[in-house]
Amino acid sequence: MRLPERVTITEVGPRDGLQNEDTFFDVARKVEMIGRLAAAGLRRIEAASFVSPKAIPQMRDAADVIGRLRRSPGVTYVALVPNETGARHAIDAGADELATVVSASETHNRRNVNRSVDESLAGIEVVARLADGAGKPWCGYVSTAFGCPYEGAVPVGRVVEIALRLRGLGAYAIALGDTIGAANPRQVSAMLRELRERLPGVPLRMHFHDTRGTGLANVLAALEEGVDGFDGSVGGLGGCPYAPGAAGNVATEDLVYMLHRMDIPTGVDLASLVGTARWMEALVGRTLPGRVKGAGEGALGDVS
Amino acid sequence: MRLPERVTITEVGPRDGLQNEDTFFDVARKVEMIGRLAAAGLRRIEAASFVSPKAIPQMRDAADVIGRLRRSPGVTYVALVPNETGARHAIDAGADELATVVSASETHNRRNVNRSVDESLAGIEVVARLADGAGKPWCGYVSTAFGCPYEGAVPVGRVVEIALRLRGLGAYAIALGDTIGAANPRQVSAMLRELRERLPGVPLRMHFHDTRGTGLANVLAALEEGVDGFDGSVGGLGGCPYAPGAAGNVATEDLVYMLHRMDIPTGVDLASLVGTARWMEALVGRTLPGRVKGAGEGALGDVS
Repeated sequence: MRLPERVTITEVGPRDGLQNEDTFFDVARKVEMIGRLAAAGLRRIEAASFVSPKAIPQMRDAADVIGRLRRSPGVTYVALVPNETGARHAIDAGADELATVVSASETHNRRNVNRSVDESLAGIEVVARLADGAGKPWCGYVSTAFGCPYEGAVPVGRVVEIALRLRGLGAYAIALGDTIGAANPRQVSAMLRELRERLPGVPLRMHFHDTRGTGLANVLAALEEGVDGFDGSVGGLGGCPYAPGAAGNVATEDLVYMLHRMDIPTGVDLASLVGTARWMEALVGRTLPGRVKGAGEGALGDVS
Repeated sequence: MRLPERVTITEVGPRDGLQNEDTFFDVARKVEMIGRLAAAGLRRIEAASFVSPKAIPQMRDAADVIGRLRRSPGVTYVALVPNETGARHAIDAGADELATVVSASETHNRRNVNRSVDESLAGIEVVARLADGAGKPWCGYVSTAFGCPYEGAVPVGRVVEIALRLRGLGAYAIALGDTIGAANPRQVSAMLRELRERLPGVPLRMHFHDTRGTGLANVLAALEEGVDGFDGSVGGLGGCPYAPGAAGNVATEDLVYMLHRMDIPTGVDLASLVGTARWMEALVGRTLPGRVKGAGEGALGDVS
């Protein structure tokens, strides 16, 4: 089993996690959450999304959150920007890095942002110029890369085509989003082989949702293809069990647990992160889907 | 990615699942449960454990359950037997196949059955003779094969040694149990390579618990080593979230979902199995840990 020597995790709980939670977190609470995640050793944190406050009220204070962060040295604070306006606000607020998003499926892109894929890519071209002017790196997310809730299967060629265009616009890294948690390991492996061939040397990151329990299996398939960057959400936040079809990202602490047990370092303190997952659980008032935090005293490495 | 062409699942919900649930299932209910699982296409079902009724009250009616099964053609009904007495009762009741268990770790074996590993293996020698006399095949489980709650790490050599002894006593297959859900994919891979070398041609089966969310990742690692037999428990039954440290087996429907999405047939009807998982959930009165059953309308293949 050939595996990366080290993995870098991007914690997306403050963005992808929270935006799918009913419990509102005010600025102070979000800043506290992000501070705890940084203290646990996470070095990349997606701190906010600069979307329309009407579309996602939970993110309405994105600029304040970025502005009031107690910054830890060595931590990159990422802002998701759905369009040019979002990018301007994120840069003004002081985000270190931008994340752009476009769906691999036309229908999902239209339902998500009311634009065609081509229109989204044209918008990303503007975002890229803004980012370049401000000296900010940006990453290109391809969402619904492994399946679309409207169109079903998504061809590998379509994902590759969009990834090439994002790279052409200047994305320093490409991230593949399994938006609906329908990826399977064989598909992940095939997709990554194709992408590595077409985009040699370009950093790839994986953003898996754990809707059907396959999250860490998909991580393993990607590790075996040499991927060393993964998104996770503390506690598996965002996976409300009462909303059919909704589910959170891979729980960061479960991801860290597996990687550490496989002797792949992440720089994250698992016990500290589990503490934050439990704190989040108390705040949202329900059991979050992450498993390690509920596994009892044997959870934190005393069987390793 | 080299993978088996087909996977055979052993459903252990009626045994490993139920014995860790508080809700008592009477004989009629157990027979109904087993009937539903067979109707969903499962061809190997661990139907009961012939343990002391004092130790595990849920299994006190094991002989009645086996005796009153409405048998489906082509289904193998397995009985777990912890000792010689259990084996006699299982054979008398009409079980098709026996499963014996011994721990890889001395301490766990003593705590579990109050015998040393050597004493357990001596008992299994007697069970093997009984099974042989009755014309019943038997499988040897090595539990705590990937970690012990008392001793921690378990050396690969220890697992191999016990597997060789079980094979020497006549086990037609060897099953490795990750009793506490602490296995990791790299470990699974290394263990299986060693076992295949030392026991060439012997069928290997994996029994993973999903305590820390790594169940399906461990399944993937085993698939890549050519393993084509896995245990699962419908709904992930047995994983009470209120008992710290306790957790069920890999949920059979999640396992089936992943395998089918990887184009590996199992013979199981996923929609039917998900129906049974939801029925179990209503009976035990709590949300079971399996994921696919809660994933909404997109769950059953319409994105494939």
